[in-house]
Amino acid sequence: MTKVATFYHAGCPVCISAEHTLVDLLDKSIKVDIVHLGEHPDRIAVAEVAGVKSVPALVINGLPLHINFGASLNDLK
Amino acid sequence: MTKVATFYHAGCPVCISAEHTLVDLLDKSIKVDIVHLGEHPDRIAVAEVAGVKSVPALVINGLPLHINFGASLNDLK
Repeated sequence: MTKVATFYHAGCPVCISAEHTLVDLLDKSIKVDIVHLGEHPDRIAVAEVAGVKSVPALVINGLPLHINFGASLNDLK
Repeated sequence: MTKVATFYHAGCPVCISAEHTLVDLLDKSIKVDIVHLGEHPDRIAVAEVAGVKSVPALVINGLPLHINFGASLNDLK
């Protein structure tokens, strides 16, 4: 079964580094949707509902995994 | 090539949840060494040298990825 994950970031160096490291590690059967919240602020609300508090974060099966610490969602609004 | 990663945790609920979620997602070619720092405090120094500040964390290719926030390493000493 193909799993779908969403990686939220804001274009910061911490985010880009985490994205490259993590997305490379994931099982190739997982389709990762990468969302730049700085460019798509309309998706911040969706991220918040999924439990995302900061970026970079990976949401999979409805569970948010916060990776390192780049920026609080509140700083992106 | 087989990659080797180390997942550091301290047995807390946040750690166990992150472990199950993340380890399931990783590419199956990656061998993950799982270290419970509460049971192996001698490995805290190794984790610190790798840049780990808190657990749960995954270290891969020398890069630490801090996952959510369970406990500061200082709280485990």
